[in-house]
Amino acid sequence: MNAKRKFENTDELVLLPLGGTGEIGMNCYCYGAGPASTREWLMVDLGVKFGDERDPGIDVILPDVGFIAKNRKRFSGLVITHAHEDHIGAVARLWPQLKCEVHCTAFAAELLKLKFIEHGIDDMVPVKIHKPGVPFTMGPFDLEFISVTHSIPESCALLIETPHGRVLHSGDWKIDRTPMLGAGFDEKRFREIGDLGVDVLVCDSTNVMREGLSPSEKDVAATLTDIVAHAKGRIAVTTFASHVERISCAVKAARSAGREVVIAGRAMRNTIEAARKCGYLKDAGAFLDEDAFGYLPRDKIMLLCTGSQGEPRAAIARIGEDNHPNIALEEGDLVIFSARTIPGNEKEVGAVQNNLATLGVDILTADDALVHSSGHPRQGELELFYQYLRPRVLVPMHGEPRHLRAHANFAKSKGIKETLILEDMKIARLCPGVPEIIDEAPGGRLHLDGKLIVDAVDGPAKFRRKLSFAGIVFLTVVINDKGELAEDIILIADGIPEGMEDDLAEAAEKAYENMPRGKRKDDGNVEEVIRTIVRRECDNIWGKKPVCKVVVVRV
Amino acid sequence: MNAKRKFENTDELVLLPLGGTGEIGMNCYCYGAGPASTREWLMVDLGVKFGDERDPGIDVILPDVGFIAKNRKRFSGLVITHAHEDHIGAVARLWPQLKCEVHCTAFAAELLKLKFIEHGIDDMVPVKIHKPGVPFTMGPFDLEFISVTHSIPESCALLIETPHGRVLHSGDWKIDRTPMLGAGFDEKRFREIGDLGVDVLVCDSTNVMREGLSPSEKDVAATLTDIVAHAKGRIAVTTFASHVERISCAVKAARSAGREVVIAGRAMRNTIEAARKCGYLKDAGAFLDEDAFGYLPRDKIMLLCTGSQGEPRAAIARIGEDNHPNIALEEGDLVIFSARTIPGNEKEVGAVQNNLATLGVDILTADDALVHSSGHPRQGELELFYQYLRPRVLVPMHGEPRHLRAHANFAKSKGIKETLILEDMKIARLCPGVPEIIDEAPGGRLHLDGKLIVDAVDGPAKFRRKLSFAGIVFLTVVINDKGELAEDIILIADGIPEGMEDDLAEAAEKAYENMPRGKRKDDGNVEEVIRTIVRRECDNIWGKKPVCKVVVVRV
Repeated sequence: MNAKRKFENTDELVLLPLGGTGEIGMNCYCYGAGPASTREWLMVDLGVKFGDERDPGIDVILPDVGFIAKNRKRFSGLVITHAHEDHIGAVARLWPQLKCEVHCTAFAAELLKLKFIEHGIDDMVPVKIHKPGVPFTMGPFDLEFISVTHSIPESCALLIETPHGRVLHSGDWKIDRTPMLGAGFDEKRFREIGDLGVDVLVCDSTNVMREGLSPSEKDVAATLTDIVAHAKGRIAVTTFASHVERISCAVKAARSAGREVVIAGRAMRNTIEAARKCGYLKDAGAFLDEDAFGYLPRDKIMLLCTGSQGEPRAAIARIGEDNHPNIALEEGDLVIFSARTIPGNEKEVGAVQNNLATLGVDILTADDALVHSSGHPRQGELELFYQYLRPRVLVPMHGEPRHLRAHANFAKSKGIKETLILEDMKIARLCPGVPEIIDEAPGGRLHLDGKLIVDAVDGPAKFRRKLSFAGIVFLTVVINDKGELAEDIILIADGIPEGMEDDLAEAAEKAYENMPRGKRKDDGNVEEVIRTIVRRECDNIWGKKPVCKVVVVRV
Repeated sequence: MNAKRKFENTDELVLLPLGGTGEIGMNCYCYGAGPASTREWLMVDLGVKFGDERDPGIDVILPDVGFIAKNRKRFSGLVITHAHEDHIGAVARLWPQLKCEVHCTAFAAELLKLKFIEHGIDDMVPVKIHKPGVPFTMGPFDLEFISVTHSIPESCALLIETPHGRVLHSGDWKIDRTPMLGAGFDEKRFREIGDLGVDVLVCDSTNVMREGLSPSEKDVAATLTDIVAHAKGRIAVTTFASHVERISCAVKAARSAGREVVIAGRAMRNTIEAARKCGYLKDAGAFLDEDAFGYLPRDKIMLLCTGSQGEPRAAIARIGEDNHPNIALEEGDLVIFSARTIPGNEKEVGAVQNNLATLGVDILTADDALVHSSGHPRQGELELFYQYLRPRVLVPMHGEPRHLRAHANFAKSKGIKETLILEDMKIARLCPGVPEIIDEAPGGRLHLDGKLIVDAVDGPAKFRRKLSFAGIVFLTVVINDKGELAEDIILIADGIPEGMEDDLAEAAEKAYENMPRGKRKDDGNVEEVIRTIVRRECDNIWGKKPVCKVVVVRV
């Protein structure tokens, strides 16, 4: 009897990531309790990731929750660890498939509510609000949020107790001993849970490549305050729209230098409103309208805005292009990029910075001064976390394969004997016994294409990728009842170099005329012959073969 | 009389960058001597830059040398400062337009020769080889190469003497006091030139954002030697194909640990061959064939290969995918990325590293240890350079606008009173007087698309970008002599979500049927009405408007 069979009908705890163990972003982790035949599921987070040039025309990628939707009768619901897009961004779109309870803290509930209203499902979704440290139950899962420090309010780790084992799901976290907002990192509770005995720690791997400890937000606040105190021109601070703590620090820096604050960007205004409803930003004071930039002295104003990732429609991008309706910056003004550039956005961020530089604006980034600190644990914090929790098994999450592998290696080097590297859509048994991959769920991932949700592998992006490489040629062949061309072949091309059209049409006509009479009767045959010759001729002239479509019209 | 008019017919020295002052890469700087009406031109470098997702299907972008080609009667020729692709990559392709002499050092001549052979122009191009420190003349330009340290052999700055002024064109450089290959940085000659009096320093800006001094290649060599000495499994080192000094250091590290060396990648083998012809790598010994990987012990072998930028067809990428014909790596082996990741390549490099991690291979990058040092000057080196040369004017080159601006600011802070920030295609007067932009040259840049050279702005890439966002719909409308549809409208779509076709065709038919009889006679009108309705219907269903082409066939 091999290891896989031994546990086949065992009461077990399994983990199925639908996203988050292969690429950064799109987090979605499903825990299953009980034997395979009657397994009850719990979903932790349901995020999106943003598309890139590999999938042209796709802005958002979502996990495929079809497997859980099919098992909806044994699905206890969704728990949200925090309100970042890569943890909540797919909830509103995919909830109609899941129709489940959503459990989260008050701040996440506020931001989710805005999304539910946008999708017209606000009155349908049952949202249950919980406080850290107060246990709650979902099906066979006894749960508790534990407060951590991270770059959005009310970030939590999740304690998952089942009859089969105890899991600590870390969510996104860092250890900040001097946070500037929120309940802080609950070291005491983590130590208590460690004393209870943790079977499995499922843990953030984002910054596992980095040594040492993350700087505290307090240090970032001090840097910002110092820079703002010494600035003589206008100041713009761009950061993540959801980073309420950073927004708070920037506003304090402005206030202490006697500057008024203007907020630009809908997402940032939404976050601020949600934060205020939850009791944050109480001492931040009122914000001015954008037109204050026109009449206040240069040294009496600060702009707080979105666009730190180079988003082309965000305020700071439009300011760089000098076409923002209300706000202009010029020689002697300063823009602080209080954010890291997410890998893949380097060119976009560079483009915005180049535009600002061309205007004569000075730019300050995290490369120049401590104007940003990541919300994820470096090696020193991971080591402390292990010491608090002393888990039997470490499962790295939130990362690309190289991060997951580095995390597993690091955990082993710190004395955690068992580690398991997972891949999206694999089902791993966490308890009992030695953790291992036992099965695989069907499905992959989804694209949000325009307003439609389509398959990520065989959807339209795949075909557009081909079009983007070599364009398309479309030929209309009108054939009369004698089997002759009733008129010249009509060729319409898009995305190919000019000047080839006549040669291609001529090649197509010649190919038709060389076809035996018998073959000309079969539309499919005519299409195939012409397509082949046109693509070959393109390759001769251009060195590329475009997509080629042929329509036969018989008259 | 304003400043511009004052010098209109003056004997002057001008600079026209065709590339290199707006984006990193594609360097091409044209110096002009004499009054506008009889100006004589000199071109320094003629490189390419690599395309990115903004221009789908474009691998290579070239400068537009049309303006110089038109003035070929007063064109003294091309000087190459060093053999990197962003300085020589366009020579073979554009030489037929220029038909000029090419002046360079022996090593650049070797690499150029390979390109000329590939393009069948080897026996046509007059190549003149020069040694650093030995003056030569091209038209009104008295020139001299001065040896610098950089990441390819025989990199040179260029002294340009004209009756109108003395320019030092830096090329790419750093100050490495302990280089591991080549003639080194000729501080003495730069000091002498400084004593003669430098009117204008045109200077590399790549690393102006970085403080301090660059580490020496000697330190990189020591790190590599140490890592290789302690490694127990196989080692692969991936670096830039042209970095002969790094190749030499890696080979020495291998030799001192008793490891044989295998070279993979055509570009790297070409460089090594060229280097050996020029007297470099004499003590590197022989390299083994790839199949040595199969029979030598794991700790007796090192692979040196291309692919450090994530190029999908390079050796290290194929090894990561576990489908290299001769070379496999596994758990316990080590890959050293002895290169920086060029901005824009982060995802590609990450993908290769993820594949290697999945195989269980350890990865070491410049983030982990000093396995790479840039070939460009940091602030400390720039400051030394200014001290040697004491230029009246600093013109920053090699950089995006933010680098150029940072360089101008830095130079000012170090006492250089005049700086001028240029843009590609602008003509600046350098001497006499205060430097300023006086004119603009026609032209832009070119795309290599397949094997054709096309316009970069209005060429096929622009149209493919549209296709890549929202696909294309083709409709064939067959109309009989009564003005009625002779058959159902034929709709062929590519790159749009499935399931919309029937609705779109139906909308098109309805639109046609609703057209007044008189309007149906005009093909252009029919096309426009149907195109509009189909795009609107697409927008309704999908939220995107594809390209739409309509063909009317009258029977």
